[in-house]
Amino acid sequence: MSELHLLSPKGFRAAGVRAGIKVKPSNDVGLLVAGSVCSAAAVFTTNPVHAAPVTVGLRHVADGQLRGVVVNSGCANACTGRQGIKDAEAMCSAAARAVGGSVAGDFLPSSTGVIGHLLPMAKVRAGIRAAAATLGDSAEHADAFAEAILTTDTRKKAAAERVRIGRETVTVAGVCKGAGMIGPRLSPSGPKLPGRRGGVPLHATMLAYLTCDAELSPAAARRLLMSASAVSFNAVLVDDHMSTNDTAALLCSGASGAKATTAAELKRLGAALEAVCRNLAYQIAADGEGATKVFRVTVRGARTDADAMAMARAICASPLVKCAIHGNDPNWGRIVSGAGLAGIAFDPAETSLVLQGTRVFRAGVPVPFDDAQLSRAMDTPEVVAELTVGRGRGKATVYSCDLSKEYVTINADYHT
Amino acid sequence: MSELHLLSPKGFRAAGVRAGIKVKPSNDVGLLVAGSVCSAAAVFTTNPVHAAPVTVGLRHVADGQLRGVVVNSGCANACTGRQGIKDAEAMCSAAARAVGGSVAGDFLPSSTGVIGHLLPMAKVRAGIRAAAATLGDSAEHADAFAEAILTTDTRKKAAAERVRIGRETVTVAGVCKGAGMIGPRLSPSGPKLPGRRGGVPLHATMLAYLTCDAELSPAAARRLLMSASAVSFNAVLVDDHMSTNDTAALLCSGASGAKATTAAELKRLGAALEAVCRNLAYQIAADGEGATKVFRVTVRGARTDADAMAMARAICASPLVKCAIHGNDPNWGRIVSGAGLAGIAFDPAETSLVLQGTRVFRAGVPVPFDDAQLSRAMDTPEVVAELTVGRGRGKATVYSCDLSKEYVTINADYHT
Repeated sequence: MSELHLLSPKGFRAAGVRAGIKVKPSNDVGLLVAGSVCSAAAVFTTNPVHAAPVTVGLRHVADGQLRGVVVNSGCANACTGRQGIKDAEAMCSAAARAVGGSVAGDFLPSSTGVIGHLLPMAKVRAGIRAAAATLGDSAEHADAFAEAILTTDTRKKAAAERVRIGRETVTVAGVCKGAGMIGPRLSPSGPKLPGRRGGVPLHATMLAYLTCDAELSPAAARRLLMSASAVSFNAVLVDDHMSTNDTAALLCSGASGAKATTAAELKRLGAALEAVCRNLAYQIAADGEGATKVFRVTVRGARTDADAMAMARAICASPLVKCAIHGNDPNWGRIVSGAGLAGIAFDPAETSLVLQGTRVFRAGVPVPFDDAQLSRAMDTPEVVAELTVGRGRGKATVYSCDLSKEYVTINADYHT
Repeated sequence: MSELHLLSPKGFRAAGVRAGIKVKPSNDVGLLVAGSVCSAAAVFTTNPVHAAPVTVGLRHVADGQLRGVVVNSGCANACTGRQGIKDAEAMCSAAARAVGGSVAGDFLPSSTGVIGHLLPMAKVRAGIRAAAATLGDSAEHADAFAEAILTTDTRKKAAAERVRIGRETVTVAGVCKGAGMIGPRLSPSGPKLPGRRGGVPLHATMLAYLTCDAELSPAAARRLLMSASAVSFNAVLVDDHMSTNDTAALLCSGASGAKATTAAELKRLGAALEAVCRNLAYQIAADGEGATKVFRVTVRGARTDADAMAMARAICASPLVKCAIHGNDPNWGRIVSGAGLAGIAFDPAETSLVLQGTRVFRAGVPVPFDDAQLSRAMDTPEVVAELTVGRGRGKATVYSCDLSKEYVTINADYHT
């Protein structure tokens, strides 16, 4: 089997071109399109300060259908008022015109980059035309699109899975970007605005685009995407700064001929989608700004999964914890106390911690261990902390990374 | 007027001695005592993972009376189970015996340092005896006590105010410590445990001891301390990692002969206490681990003060924001989006930001400014951000600092 990629699911084409929006010489405008309008779903940042493409994207995906996605990197089109909204709409119109046979409302727009600047629309429009002219379904096309969405990422991120549905083979694939401003709390209802109830949260500019060639109802697509996002994109955290632009979208072309309708089929397809999303989320953590290692935290025994997730996120958001992980320092007190930052009650006397395979804290009391040996065991590409906070059934895993001096270097002068 | 200090309020003595608990050669056991048991109040960390001295302190101050405070640095006595509780009680017994005329329950114990180690009780007991033998009320005694509570702090922190109550002059003074693990959320009801409702939160090990020579009822002392803490200790944030040990305590000797009973007197005394606490909180921010400058954030126009406080805290907790401040980078999009991390709905179209005196964002739209000029203006010991998020009356100010590579150096190997 040849290597799967974003365009392995049948019925999709993509392109990525260099439009000169980003300073660095790499692709910065991408197009991903299905053969025709198809079932789709998307989840968006819940930050009240959300970018224009999120406002427009929410509207365009509301009917559960999309023809494609149009993305730029280098400028977030966030905090740009009414002109920003017009520009995000104009990106969609330009994509619809360039691809043909569609209207603006069939496209989901995304932008990522610096906040507070208007899009250079002449460059964006030229980029969209150039991308439409070079659409294709090869691995190179998938790669060109994957590159077009990157900002401070050091590498492209992609994943794919295959699953049997009936007699057909269905492929689920995806690409994503994200390195800094990562702490997604995505929801299909988007930002929490006055008078509107918020949903599941997400942070960073994280962008993810998922393709699938099964036929799926819009409602099922939305359910599967929400469920997969909850344990992947909403479980990755670099700096816990929820972005203005976070978006994850799923398009289902139906081109494999497979229809996922029974509960068992939806479950299998959902598992494949979840595997792709977890793989992508892990790649974001591994490529976190300045990261030298992944820090994976599992919390068990909480009252609910949401409580466990909040505690795992709180641990991973702590700069004190992240620095200890960076220094291979088995300073477990920071991890245990970090769980307390979530504002959720639990009893330390029922709490235990296993750090990189070594039990260091049991039922509220330290367990003696060899500091130097555990420190050596932490000097690897992945450090794992497993915290048990009681006897509940709530469980969650968060993918994060360490905090290095390089993070400070990257973020002390990204803008100027 | 000679320089005021912790022992300027009449009726207090203190001492600080070197007991060999800390590795570095400085004082690590401190005693602060009033002439007799007096009105007192204390607020404690709301982290469910709280240290033994917090458990014991909550109990000892429950009657609104204390004789004094006994503190050690170098070991937090946190995550130490039942033995930890016994040791915290033993510190109080030792203090009561050494000072004479009191019982263990008259003392508030505090500890700060590494989590997960038992106190070296022989050293602690010897330290308490030595401290009791050298109690005095001079500036040098105040200094020796102030040094005994420090950990990664680079300097001692003290403040004082004088106020007229009736015909008498009342002095309010305090010392504190805190540099890392700072994100206090203090409450008189202490930690949030299963089955107990939490109170106002606090983080870091922040310790603060306040002396006052007015006569005050325990209830009034508690009210004034809560109110002052809300805008000072609970408004300072270095890494937003709420500590297991945070404690602020107020002792009122009554030795000035002044009784604060009327609303006007209590208001004046409260204002003096608040000024002392704000001054101390500011010193913590300025001495934050690795900090090169203070970052002061005021949020206005929120629905409530609590909403404004949550938004200001969220901005200051973001490593992206802190790095931008460190790099004198007017990347205001991080500040505006950071306010959205608090999970509180507000309308970006009604939001404006003034950064270091320059309006950069007004009613949801960027205001053009000179990047280089604003960057130069940020190259000072204090950077100020003023965010307006609507037309509400809620307002809050948070004292924080930048994030430098030095923070990573300090925290990547504090433990080992």
